[in-house]
Amino acid sequence: MRIGIVAPSTPILPGTAERATAIAAACVPEAELVFHPQCFLSHRHFAGEDEVRADAFVEMANDPGFDALWVARGGYGSCRIAEDVVARLEPAARGKAYLGYSDAGYVLAGLYRAGFERVAHGPMPGDLRRDGGEAAVARALSWLVRDDPSALEPNLGSEPAAAFNITVFSQLLGTPVEPDLAGHVLMLEDVSEHMYRTDRSLFHITGNARVRKVAGIRLGRCTEVPENDPDFGAGEEEVFRYWCGRSGIPYLGRADIGHDAANKVVPFGRSYSSSRT
Amino acid sequence: MRIGIVAPSTPILPGTAERATAIAAACVPEAELVFHPQCFLSHRHFAGEDEVRADAFVEMANDPGFDALWVARGGYGSCRIAEDVVARLEPAARGKAYLGYSDAGYVLAGLYRAGFERVAHGPMPGDLRRDGGEAAVARALSWLVRDDPSALEPNLGSEPAAAFNITVFSQLLGTPVEPDLAGHVLMLEDVSEHMYRTDRSLFHITGNARVRKVAGIRLGRCTEVPENDPDFGAGEEEVFRYWCGRSGIPYLGRADIGHDAANKVVPFGRSYSSSRT
Repeated sequence: MRIGIVAPSTPILPGTAERATAIAAACVPEAELVFHPQCFLSHRHFAGEDEVRADAFVEMANDPGFDALWVARGGYGSCRIAEDVVARLEPAARGKAYLGYSDAGYVLAGLYRAGFERVAHGPMPGDLRRDGGEAAVARALSWLVRDDPSALEPNLGSEPAAAFNITVFSQLLGTPVEPDLAGHVLMLEDVSEHMYRTDRSLFHITGNARVRKVAGIRLGRCTEVPENDPDFGAGEEEVFRYWCGRSGIPYLGRADIGHDAANKVVPFGRSYSSSRT
Repeated sequence: MRIGIVAPSTPILPGTAERATAIAAACVPEAELVFHPQCFLSHRHFAGEDEVRADAFVEMANDPGFDALWVARGGYGSCRIAEDVVARLEPAARGKAYLGYSDAGYVLAGLYRAGFERVAHGPMPGDLRRDGGEAAVARALSWLVRDDPSALEPNLGSEPAAAFNITVFSQLLGTPVEPDLAGHVLMLEDVSEHMYRTDRSLFHITGNARVRKVAGIRLGRCTEVPENDPDFGAGEEEVFRYWCGRSGIPYLGRADIGHDAANKVVPFGRSYSSSRT
């Protein structure tokens, strides 16, 4: 099993790759991690220029020598290349698993929209900078390599699911990478956003007619919320209950996802219950 | 001429109302400003609870004794009431002028979508907290009361126009208040947003098929941009040129609007060239 790692948003340091490789050697010795050199590039805000990031993703995705593509880290930047990347993928890219979260959501969305069957929201090598990040990376690898059910978000059920960062999901609505999530349980999480911004994003998300076709929304963790001045007076659960109620979308409770070491894996669609081929 | 002032987002202080009234007395003595007491209420983040803000707006808009409604201040909150407010407006509300900007964009959008003919983006009483804010308030009043052409954004031409805050416009796409801007010159400005957020908003805005029907986009001022870490490496004009080019939307140059005292008035549609009735 060979896992290719690319960085469609921002770069990681070589030390992060070394630590992830050591965790893989200990936890899933049957897997080999291959970090594309692009992961370590830096161009302004990004891990290399748009074309360089897109080329690296397409190169590894189209290479039959890899079984999975793992996004190195979030940040910002994958929206600039997601549509182009998906358009350039060949049949060899279809069978692979794709894992990431946060800003990687634009690429995951585009892949899922295009019918890719093993797309999942979950931890990335960049999570090693968090307290307890080793557990998150080990969890991601146990899903990628062994389809370990203990890695999965515990509320996954008979309905298909998808998971996104709140801000990322808001910003992909109506764009060429928006997936059809009718009938899906939509899990949402965020980090470092003022509560008024989360409230505004929920207005936008639940105000979109296509989103109202989801089976329901689950709320992941909203962490590192900056102080609101004046106090917003409501937490994220009250905000979610309000907008779900107003838009007629069932609010289904919490989800075990977030920008933290406990972040569980959410495979998009029904693939989480299928066995690996 | 009677101008009603309401606060669909956040409150103003009584001193702001007194200063605006004094400017009106000096510059447009034929006008009377009537501040709804709701302007001074405070509930959490907002100028009163949602229902209170909505009721105040509807009350003044439906009152034949007012010729215009002026939004007191932006901030955040009008998205929570805009759809409800517009649905409750009666024929007496149709002939009035409506003026505001920033967070007021949700209400302006809903009014314009509903066919209101004198909807405009321009200064508010809350601008008195800015350096030179008196000039902005006098400019707004000169447009509201005398249709003064010197108050208008200088690039207005034969094509209909509309103007919004970038973030506000992004967040209303696909919602029940999104107006049809096909064939319009769309002017956009923002304040206090990191450049990566502006870039992401432009991905979202220019990625929406309906937005691609505009005649073109003009860039207002982006001010108080927080420092990006790492440096984003591009300013707002480069960001706008990039996304306009990529999406096939003509980039038409700069617009004289922004969160500052120089902010000019942009009447939506063609009403800026019509005479007052």
